[in-house]
Amino acid sequence: MYQLYVSKPKSSWSLRPWILLKELNIPFEDKQVYYLDNLQGQRAQFAQFSPTSKIPVLHHQGSVIWDSLAIVEYIAETYPQVWAEDKKARAWSRSACAEMHSGFTHLRDICNFSPLEKISLPQIPAEVEQELKRINQLWEEGLRLFGGEFLAGQCFTAVDAFFVPVAGRIQTYGLEAYFSTQALAYQQRLLALPSYQEWLNA
Amino acid sequence: MYQLYVSKPKSSWSLRPWILLKELNIPFEDKQVYYLDNLQGQRAQFAQFSPTSKIPVLHHQGSVIWDSLAIVEYIAETYPQVWAEDKKARAWSRSACAEMHSGFTHLRDICNFSPLEKISLPQIPAEVEQELKRINQLWEEGLRLFGGEFLAGQCFTAVDAFFVPVAGRIQTYGLEAYFSTQALAYQQRLLALPSYQEWLNA
Repeated sequence: MYQLYVSKPKSSWSLRPWILLKELNIPFEDKQVYYLDNLQGQRAQFAQFSPTSKIPVLHHQGSVIWDSLAIVEYIAETYPQVWAEDKKARAWSRSACAEMHSGFTHLRDICNFSPLEKISLPQIPAEVEQELKRINQLWEEGLRLFGGEFLAGQCFTAVDAFFVPVAGRIQTYGLEAYFSTQALAYQQRLLALPSYQEWLNA
Repeated sequence: MYQLYVSKPKSSWSLRPWILLKELNIPFEDKQVYYLDNLQGQRAQFAQFSPTSKIPVLHHQGSVIWDSLAIVEYIAETYPQVWAEDKKARAWSRSACAEMHSGFTHLRDICNFSPLEKISLPQIPAEVEQELKRINQLWEEGLRLFGGEFLAGQCFTAVDAFFVPVAGRIQTYGLEAYFSTQALAYQQRLLALPSYQEWLNA
């Protein structure tokens, strides 16, 4: 049984593999951990299950997988439905996930993931605007190229899981103006996922 | 035939998939491109083959894969030797690659990849020191857990490719003091790879 260490609802990186497993009905043990005000204490505590003291971490059959994207690929070896069936959609999905994984740092820094709040920023820095426009472009492209309700086609896959936290940030910070009608419809589909509601209510 | 867009010798992200393909003898077309002093002009030029105007990019059978880690996974679908054969070694490798992919930002920013130079920094910031210690820890762990000459065992795989630019940085900036004897022996094996020499001489 997979053991996934996460912190609901604040850890946006935890949300990605957690919602993927939930939406694909893949059984796992949901190990909730808590951030501490004392960062040193938290690092020491998290080090007991995570080599980087970060989450998410997956434990399975003696392996410890300590990054969201690595967790997704590990699970995909057993459950190929983690990625789209179509090779081109899969290639596109992996590129988009990797871009999210290493990028959009201004959005992530400035629009901290706080899914239960409504936050009004005095202004949106130009770097964040540029990143939002790029995300809109990616979403439009996925929806157009693969013609489904989700980015890589008709099924929810890992690339959607990777963008769920962005959907939450758009709502929290009122960033809808940067997105097209289709992109916002997609964002609404992500927010309406039953497992996203479950994450928020945890 | 894979078409891989890279910029030798400066682009450390290009080096990763390039050296992987070379070391595994996977045929590909090596598309060398050049950075321009005029960043706007460069972005416009790179946009002709890369959706983010960044490299590396892989073109193959109508797909464009625009990130180094996504390229590695795309190639691994056809050439499983991209990753270690052992499942645990593969899981570990993917975590280590993902950590490199999204992290070690101080090292990457402060110790710019300049493999043909010798550079002496007035001092090594504490954040860089911490990242170097973590890399040493990772290298020692891979060598110990999987018992080979390379991080995931006896064969050169993607996780080694991901750390080749670090091996170059250690040499350029004289960072050997942060590494154990075994880790430095591994670094020397990476620098001695014939394909790394080919990259430098391009």
